[in-house]
Amino acid sequence: MGHWDGFKGDKWRTSVDVRDFIQHNYTEYKGDDSFLEPAAESTEKLWTKLQELFEVQHEKNGVYDMDNNIPATVTSHEPGYLIKEEEKIVGLQTDVPLKQAFMPFGGINMANNALVSNGYETDEEMTKIFTDWRKTHNQGVFDAYTPEMRAARKNKIITGLPDAYGRGRIIGDYRRLALYGIDFLIAEKKKDLSNVGNKVMTEEVIRLREEVSAQIRALGSIKEMATYYGFDISAPAKNAQEAIQWTYFGYLAAIKSQNGAAMSIGRISAFLDIYIQRDLDNGAITELEAQEMIDHLIMKLRMVKFARTPEYNQLFSGYPIWATLSIAGMGIDGRSLVTKNDFRILHTLVNMGPSPEPNLTVLYSSHLPEGFRTFASHIAKESSSIQFENDDLLRANWGSDDCAIACCVSATVMGKDMQFFGARANLAKAVLYAINGGVDEKTKAQVGPKFRPMTGDTLDYNEFVERYKDIMDWLAELYVNTLNVIHFMHDKYAYEAEQLAFMETDLKRTFATGIAGISHAADSMMAIKHGNVKVIRDEDGLAVDYVPQNEFPTYGNDNEEADACANWILDYFMTQIKRQHTYRNSTPTTSLLTITSNVVYGKATGNTPDGRRAGKPLAPGANPSYQDGKFLGEKNGLLASLNSTAKLEYTNARDGISNTQTINPNGLGKDDATRVNNLRNVMDGYFDNGGYHLNVNVFTTDLLLDAQAHPEKYPNLTIRVSGYAVKFRDLTPEQQADVISRTSHDRM
Amino acid sequence: MGHWDGFKGDKWRTSVDVRDFIQHNYTEYKGDDSFLEPAAESTEKLWTKLQELFEVQHEKNGVYDMDNNIPATVTSHEPGYLIKEEEKIVGLQTDVPLKQAFMPFGGINMANNALVSNGYETDEEMTKIFTDWRKTHNQGVFDAYTPEMRAARKNKIITGLPDAYGRGRIIGDYRRLALYGIDFLIAEKKKDLSNVGNKVMTEEVIRLREEVSAQIRALGSIKEMATYYGFDISAPAKNAQEAIQWTYFGYLAAIKSQNGAAMSIGRISAFLDIYIQRDLDNGAITELEAQEMIDHLIMKLRMVKFARTPEYNQLFSGYPIWATLSIAGMGIDGRSLVTKNDFRILHTLVNMGPSPEPNLTVLYSSHLPEGFRTFASHIAKESSSIQFENDDLLRANWGSDDCAIACCVSATVMGKDMQFFGARANLAKAVLYAINGGVDEKTKAQVGPKFRPMTGDTLDYNEFVERYKDIMDWLAELYVNTLNVIHFMHDKYAYEAEQLAFMETDLKRTFATGIAGISHAADSMMAIKHGNVKVIRDEDGLAVDYVPQNEFPTYGNDNEEADACANWILDYFMTQIKRQHTYRNSTPTTSLLTITSNVVYGKATGNTPDGRRAGKPLAPGANPSYQDGKFLGEKNGLLASLNSTAKLEYTNARDGISNTQTINPNGLGKDDATRVNNLRNVMDGYFDNGGYHLNVNVFTTDLLLDAQAHPEKYPNLTIRVSGYAVKFRDLTPEQQADVISRTSHDRM
Repeated sequence: MGHWDGFKGDKWRTSVDVRDFIQHNYTEYKGDDSFLEPAAESTEKLWTKLQELFEVQHEKNGVYDMDNNIPATVTSHEPGYLIKEEEKIVGLQTDVPLKQAFMPFGGINMANNALVSNGYETDEEMTKIFTDWRKTHNQGVFDAYTPEMRAARKNKIITGLPDAYGRGRIIGDYRRLALYGIDFLIAEKKKDLSNVGNKVMTEEVIRLREEVSAQIRALGSIKEMATYYGFDISAPAKNAQEAIQWTYFGYLAAIKSQNGAAMSIGRISAFLDIYIQRDLDNGAITELEAQEMIDHLIMKLRMVKFARTPEYNQLFSGYPIWATLSIAGMGIDGRSLVTKNDFRILHTLVNMGPSPEPNLTVLYSSHLPEGFRTFASHIAKESSSIQFENDDLLRANWGSDDCAIACCVSATVMGKDMQFFGARANLAKAVLYAINGGVDEKTKAQVGPKFRPMTGDTLDYNEFVERYKDIMDWLAELYVNTLNVIHFMHDKYAYEAEQLAFMETDLKRTFATGIAGISHAADSMMAIKHGNVKVIRDEDGLAVDYVPQNEFPTYGNDNEEADACANWILDYFMTQIKRQHTYRNSTPTTSLLTITSNVVYGKATGNTPDGRRAGKPLAPGANPSYQDGKFLGEKNGLLASLNSTAKLEYTNARDGISNTQTINPNGLGKDDATRVNNLRNVMDGYFDNGGYHLNVNVFTTDLLLDAQAHPEKYPNLTIRVSGYAVKFRDLTPEQQADVISRTSHDRM
Repeated sequence: MGHWDGFKGDKWRTSVDVRDFIQHNYTEYKGDDSFLEPAAESTEKLWTKLQELFEVQHEKNGVYDMDNNIPATVTSHEPGYLIKEEEKIVGLQTDVPLKQAFMPFGGINMANNALVSNGYETDEEMTKIFTDWRKTHNQGVFDAYTPEMRAARKNKIITGLPDAYGRGRIIGDYRRLALYGIDFLIAEKKKDLSNVGNKVMTEEVIRLREEVSAQIRALGSIKEMATYYGFDISAPAKNAQEAIQWTYFGYLAAIKSQNGAAMSIGRISAFLDIYIQRDLDNGAITELEAQEMIDHLIMKLRMVKFARTPEYNQLFSGYPIWATLSIAGMGIDGRSLVTKNDFRILHTLVNMGPSPEPNLTVLYSSHLPEGFRTFASHIAKESSSIQFENDDLLRANWGSDDCAIACCVSATVMGKDMQFFGARANLAKAVLYAINGGVDEKTKAQVGPKFRPMTGDTLDYNEFVERYKDIMDWLAELYVNTLNVIHFMHDKYAYEAEQLAFMETDLKRTFATGIAGISHAADSMMAIKHGNVKVIRDEDGLAVDYVPQNEFPTYGNDNEEADACANWILDYFMTQIKRQHTYRNSTPTTSLLTITSNVVYGKATGNTPDGRRAGKPLAPGANPSYQDGKFLGEKNGLLASLNSTAKLEYTNARDGISNTQTINPNGLGKDDATRVNNLRNVMDGYFDNGGYHLNVNVFTTDLLLDAQAHPEKYPNLTIRVSGYAVKFRDLTPEQQADVISRTSHDRM
């Protein structure tokens, strides 16, 4: 059979247009989950083997094995297998399952630190090569940083910056490899190269020409890599197995060559379903075999591992790599993009049990077929391993029904957008800088400009607002320019040719800033306005504690004023961000997302005027506070909390608004069917109401307390944290305590 | 004695200002050469040893030995010596005299090609490192080149581009190291770094911050390198020996780390004389010891060697490295800058015989003391090893009396300017493109735009001029943009931190384009206008030969119309060059300079309308034609030739106008004293008249013919070619034939 036999549509045949191919060929599925098949025998064998390896890895503190002297490239390793004869989909990052590659291009110190901190030796020759002869991203950044940037970083008013790890968050459109084969992609890139620039060689043009040349070389390497596994990927995939394999090879090239913070695979479900459906229709495969291939692909995504430093693990706890896989979603023609494959993918959580990776993400809308919404709610409730994003907002704001999520909540159009990931500024700490005239409350260093401190016994609201604006002005400028340095150097020293080769040459780039501590910032403003906050100063006159004397409204309780305050902060900060010069004229965005770094952010942040105690975790992402301050917390139940979050203006936070909720099963209803229906209805309402994202956990706090006390009983207990899922046992003790302290809603 | 004891002036003490130091402290010398001393015993021993090594090198085709697996950096090699106990000034590029270092950063293919073509093996590991992990300048350039650029390069309408070798021509102000010591320079660069940019991180700012950081690291490495030789260069030099040694260490760092086409040392004569004079005045040294140290320094400069490819040697024949050393010159206060040291430096050509390196360059003015002008004329006549540049033009056009020459004729202000060297466009070949509608006359490829070819049996002048302008428009744009690519990539992959560390952070940059074939272009225009040129076409209708039927005026004979034509071409082309976008907003300049590449340029250029035969060398630089066409050649003697060259407008060719002349001794006068006086008078007149540069050769053609036939008789015969000196025996047979065919003026 010819590779395109039976496919419809024309436009996609002559130039790269995967969306057009999907729209002409996918089969919407409106039924329920009754067609699903259990794990095939091969899946059982492979998964059993893999779980054994995972146990070894767990015992060795998350590291099965590590390379120390093979700088990872697409072709640096011999082929590797789990059980060769059982694998329908092949390809490992290195030659041994779970062995972590040596990736020095981002920074030799980090690569060596990852080795040493895990008990491995560094290689002298490699250290010399990547110090004396081959500069790395990390060194480039620190060569250009200003003292002010270093101070802001050290004092953690800006933190988690991708200067000591890869920026990640780029999603190659790996589907292109399956649909077109690599030779066509090379030819198209060569055509592009001939049209980059017209005579005048500005630096922009020179750089892009060099990048496209690097992409062409990368595609050649990927073709070579596939031959190691016995495949010729020159031509398009001929059947479902090849389509999955080719797509995975594209992704494999990315994870072989880049250790980015988030290495997402994108939106591949409907695309692959077209090939599966064709094979099913032709009688070439059975549903059991279809599920088997999907299970094997997902298993590969569960195996992705990167060598990382203790500092990194503090920031992003539980070894996430964000192999985010986006499913479902609506089409702009009114059909949903739900296919049987979306069921198969969720079903992997049943066939192989819950798992943090891939980061399964449902692009949700109340217009999705009810069968799918019910099934997804069921899986969410059972596994606490999946997340939901508002597909109606995505289509309206990104102009495409081919969006995917990079990392946690960051939307990107497949093959057309890339992101300059930028971690986050701590706006809760900025509240304290506004009060203390730019002096850090923990280190007592003058980090911000030498503004006048506030000196009253209590805090005047109007005075505070002016100062807070000044601090945000300063912070936004410093923050964006710090990121300008980082991304200039990332392009220079750790360019992602293997991923960008699968994307348009004429890319749209977003400049993704982020905000941490939004709830504490808003609640502090409310406290200052309404709470008559008494200031306690230390011997140096530095404000170090705050006592709100009156009650005040807080964000997260569907209170208009408090919620509007959170929106005002977002709007004001984003407006300042937009004023700045951004690298490569990228489009500024921001996120309300902390991942698990809310814990380290909180550790570095003093007492806040809302009553939050120094050192305690910030509420993650856009979550309302669940802190120990007297007037804090979500007091009005799940729906009020969701309403507050839904009011945050997505157009100001197009990099995403993360909301993580834990619901006590009993709060959802008395039996499983009721609970599933209620959860689905809650989501329908929340997303129709403009909510952007929901991490759904359905369990009791008691379960977590038991798992904390008896980890051996819960080796696979998986929970959603801010934007990803994690095995509870892999969290640090502090992270576990934070998760346990979060609100578990027992009422709607 | 304190390092600055006895020195006058204040400004130079607190911030880097070497010129201010010189102006306050140098002793002008108006006497003759009678004070000079012969070679010291140590000099004799060292020079004898070095000549033995040179013989071995000559027998091994110019390569004494080569590294293949130590990428050269400032600290990559153990110290090396010629005869350790005899050397007053120490420091070698590698650990063994004349051993050529392995320099892969510019291009691993070139570095390997240099090895293989000289019979050395390449190192597999190095090839892997500099292919897979560390990109090089050469690869960067070819990644960004357009097909049009490749075609222009391949067809040699633009040629000699520094894309397969280092751009060179950067002169660090190495005197700074002696005057201030390295710690002060590091502190000043750190101060600079803190003031590069103000908050907004544009790419310009980021890049410069990274560069200054690299410079600071480089200074640290140089300090370390000096310790290998037993010196602590933290503090300023305390005496003449240290001043010479510190200055040389600065230069040594450059030649250890960069294989640039021209590695000039700049203007160090008056500066070092200050230290020598202080030591002489204090009775710390004798004149014999002063000469000994200068001889040893010059000997080091004679030893500089780089691994180079056969292609490079074709372009720049005789292994030049352009350790150009500029002496004399006038001060803007009316004093000359001539010191005894200028005599000592010229005297090295007596003490150790003539030598191509360092490229001794007299910054000439008729206002220089007569004693020096006479001595310099004497040395020029005796050695044919030195060149002269018009210091009056330099001061007027560069606003400084601290200029130096980089390479051959390119002026640069010490420590303040750098140059983006850009080889040259072949304007003789462009004449043929204008006639043939952009089709190359040798390869028949369509290289330029598809303009209409000229079709008449004879060439119409007005029609030709319009077409020639169109071709120059196209060529200037393509040429400048090709150079934009090269310099972007050079900064990116082979940045000269070790040299730029000795220069201002806020540099002025010139963008040095160049013109080859000016005389043939001008003579062809004259032929077309006055010569009724008959066109001969081949079977494809391509114009391949030209027969001027009438006599026509030619450039080089003091003919107003022909000389004005040459100036018109220069002015028109330079105007087009100035229209273009230049990398880093550098200031466009051009040169009339071909070095020895006039031979390869000519080889690639078909018959020209002036009657020059296909494949014959172009006249070098700005030289008038000496070709075999019926109406060509300098017919009116030396002075007419010099007058023509002097009319070329220096403000349009601020990168320099190269003029090489050979004078028959008998043409200069009947005895030595007369000859010296006449030569000096010729130069006074030529430079007063606005001539920019003169390479002086004084010998007969018979001498060269004898040297061609009996090379063994003339191991040290040195002659001036276009902008440098060379040992005659090191020229290729073609180059020797070219030099012999040049006009040897036997009348004034």
